[in-house]
Amino acid sequence: MPHITLPDGLPGIRGPMAFRPETAKPLNELAEILLRGPSTLTPGERELIATYVSSENDCFFCQSIHGAVAAYHLGANEKLVQDVKQDYQSAPVSAKLKSLLNIAGKVQKGGKQVKEEDIARARQEGATDLEIHDTVLIAAAFSMYNRYVDGLATWQPDDPAMYRARGALTAREGYGKTA
Amino acid sequence: MPHITLPDGLPGIRGPMAFRPETAKPLNELAEILLRGPSTLTPGERELIATYVSSENDCFFCQSIHGAVAAYHLGANEKLVQDVKQDYQSAPVSAKLKSLLNIAGKVQKGGKQVKEEDIARARQEGATDLEIHDTVLIAAAFSMYNRYVDGLATWQPDDPAMYRARGALTAREGYGKTA
Repeated sequence: MPHITLPDGLPGIRGPMAFRPETAKPLNELAEILLRGPSTLTPGERELIATYVSSENDCFFCQSIHGAVAAYHLGANEKLVQDVKQDYQSAPVSAKLKSLLNIAGKVQKGGKQVKEEDIARARQEGATDLEIHDTVLIAAAFSMYNRYVDGLATWQPDDPAMYRARGALTAREGYGKTA
Repeated sequence: MPHITLPDGLPGIRGPMAFRPETAKPLNELAEILLRGPSTLTPGERELIATYVSSENDCFFCQSIHGAVAAYHLGANEKLVQDVKQDYQSAPVSAKLKSLLNIAGKVQKGGKQVKEEDIARARQEGATDLEIHDTVLIAAAFSMYNRYVDGLATWQPDDPAMYRARGALTAREGYGKTA
């Protein structure tokens, strides 16, 4: 049961977002820009970073819904999402994305964990300043969303079909566009 | 030196915010609503929560600037800010604020650290659902801002006068209102 009284029937972050629409607005805007806005990283790559950080933070709702969004963008490739969560270093993704997932994993542990060598590796794989910036902010933002969702003990159903359907909708329509 | 090339002379979060104004907008809006919007918690109380979380995350810039904003709201009481950072349980703040700082400290460690008993204690001290919600989201949001600021290795000068002056300006004008 959630720690506070939230609207019924809304899983994960959707409960507190309906409870407090004032803060939902910038939270959705931030996700929209970072995960779907103009970028040299594909939406699938950015959702994989969000999913990986949510998995490291053990947030079931966030890793399930963003994993579903990622899979949709990647051509319904749910296996790739699982591979990245379990061991991204041996997953079939680009060396550049691996270097960004490495930075995201450091940010998840704490900002100061990101070292010169992590940045150097990403640059060597062709990452730009903007890609590094957005990776750091995606990882930081999911360190927030994950804590928001679990810190209020939100309802997190475990039906994969729900996440698959909602993930496809979000992948097509965006964040904060549908109730 | 910052991990990416940021505009010169802007300390802490202001560097990456100038580098990426698209994401700066929702980041500032979220801070404005949570820390200065209508609330039964005073701006000083909310800035103390932000400062405490930033201190637990060892983010020098964030704890300094929000500590300065808090002190301004609290009648230039810099000692109270130090007391809360060092040991809030024995600091001269209300029992309700102590119970909310306890929740914030749990969120900083991880969302699942917040237990029924933490919520029960806050309720016993008179905290409302909205106050508990906002405390969780402030603590989650600063788990983001702190990682953003340190994950990019931003410039963080250690001149207390700079933080005092900027903190007073922010306390009066708000977030994202001045360059």
